[in-house]
Amino acid sequence: MTQAGNSPTPERIWQVITGYQMTAAIRAAIEIGIFTKIADGNTTSLAIAQSVGASERGVRIICDTMAVLGFLVKNGDDYSLADDAAVFLNEHSPAYLGNMIDFILGPTINRGFADLTAAARQGGTTVKDDGSVDPESPMWATFARSMMGMMIPSAHRMASELGYEKDAPIKVLDIAAGHGIFGISVAQQYPNAQIYAVDWKNVLPVARENAERFGVSDRLHTIEGNAFDV
Amino acid sequence: MTQAGNSPTPERIWQVITGYQMTAAIRAAIEIGIFTKIADGNTTSLAIAQSVGASERGVRIICDTMAVLGFLVKNGDDYSLADDAAVFLNEHSPAYLGNMIDFILGPTINRGFADLTAAARQGGTTVKDDGSVDPESPMWATFARSMMGMMIPSAHRMASELGYEKDAPIKVLDIAAGHGIFGISVAQQYPNAQIYAVDWKNVLPVARENAERFGVSDRLHTIEGNAFDV
Repeated sequence: MTQAGNSPTPERIWQVITGYQMTAAIRAAIEIGIFTKIADGNTTSLAIAQSVGASERGVRIICDTMAVLGFLVKNGDDYSLADDAAVFLNEHSPAYLGNMIDFILGPTINRGFADLTAAARQGGTTVKDDGSVDPESPMWATFARSMMGMMIPSAHRMASELGYEKDAPIKVLDIAAGHGIFGISVAQQYPNAQIYAVDWKNVLPVARENAERFGVSDRLHTIEGNAFDV
Repeated sequence: MTQAGNSPTPERIWQVITGYQMTAAIRAAIEIGIFTKIADGNTTSLAIAQSVGASERGVRIICDTMAVLGFLVKNGDDYSLADDAAVFLNEHSPAYLGNMIDFILGPTINRGFADLTAAARQGGTTVKDDGSVDPESPMWATFARSMMGMMIPSAHRMASELGYEKDAPIKVLDIAAGHGIFGISVAQQYPNAQIYAVDWKNVLPVARENAERFGVSDRLHTIEGNAFDV
């Protein structure tokens, strides 16, 4: 900014008002696969663009925006991944969470923010019947598929703090289990733990898949039910 | 975040992916008039809500979000303005720029970010015929009306750095003048300066209004023209 010393500047206001543009930019970077392609050794905008069949100009502009935000480092024409991008935005990383955009930027959540002014004025959502409390809603299966990465650190930490004897035959009731990672983390920490995951019919297969992926499938039991009824 | 020490966390990624939600929140705060109402002495969510005829719950949630972002300070039930909010988001402030949302969050700019992934893939906008290069487009009059506040500091600084003799009879050709603040700032700095502001027909009245507001209207001359032809 051009103002002197400690005078207030509009910089933070500008950042928040234009925040939606940065959301669109990181979404484009994730959807095009830029972070993963860089991890694979395509370090220039031309190499990335060719590997995904996109415009070099478009890819370069998105990469430069990611460099401004600190998710990429640019050196000459070469881009490399910042530490957080390498861990969380490279699809090959076990901690990948780029697919959270399927939920966070998906239609149901987006709709809720489309006219937040009206929602604030009336003290609640202006969206009628969005189906988010419908047991058949695909929204929560999308949630379960896309939000696990974000919760893994918290789930592991929670499991490590429980303080039971290592071989304790504990039972866990995981209500509204979703992706199942909280129960799964307990199962990983306690070899004799049995996990009972409760959620809607469309969601339970996701918890099942994740239990298989983490090798605790024989100790995860699924129960179709409604968390609102518990 | 729950991770230890220097391990990467998803915190910055989360902030950027959810940035559009913060954009919606500051937009709601500006549109409801929360910053101005606090400046007027309505310091609780109940007082603000009553003064604007809105839900207390909705106003409180938006105020708390603004406090998290650092634009408000919350003390008990009372909110006060952070320095930048007091200068730039209170409608009574001469440096108010909250109305920039009319342009930055308006339909033309918004549309360009609606599918940035596709735009990046093809190397240019996917929006056809948005009218932004039409001399009759209302977009640039909106621009002129809403973006001046953001440019005042830069314009004043520019004018102060020109280095002419104070009474020099300089002439300024301000091409694509818009709000006119760059020429106006020179006119304020140099009492014998004459400003020739070129822009489209719909936009020039805004420069004229601003010249009147800043007391240099007799030295601002408007010329209808197209910056693309200069």
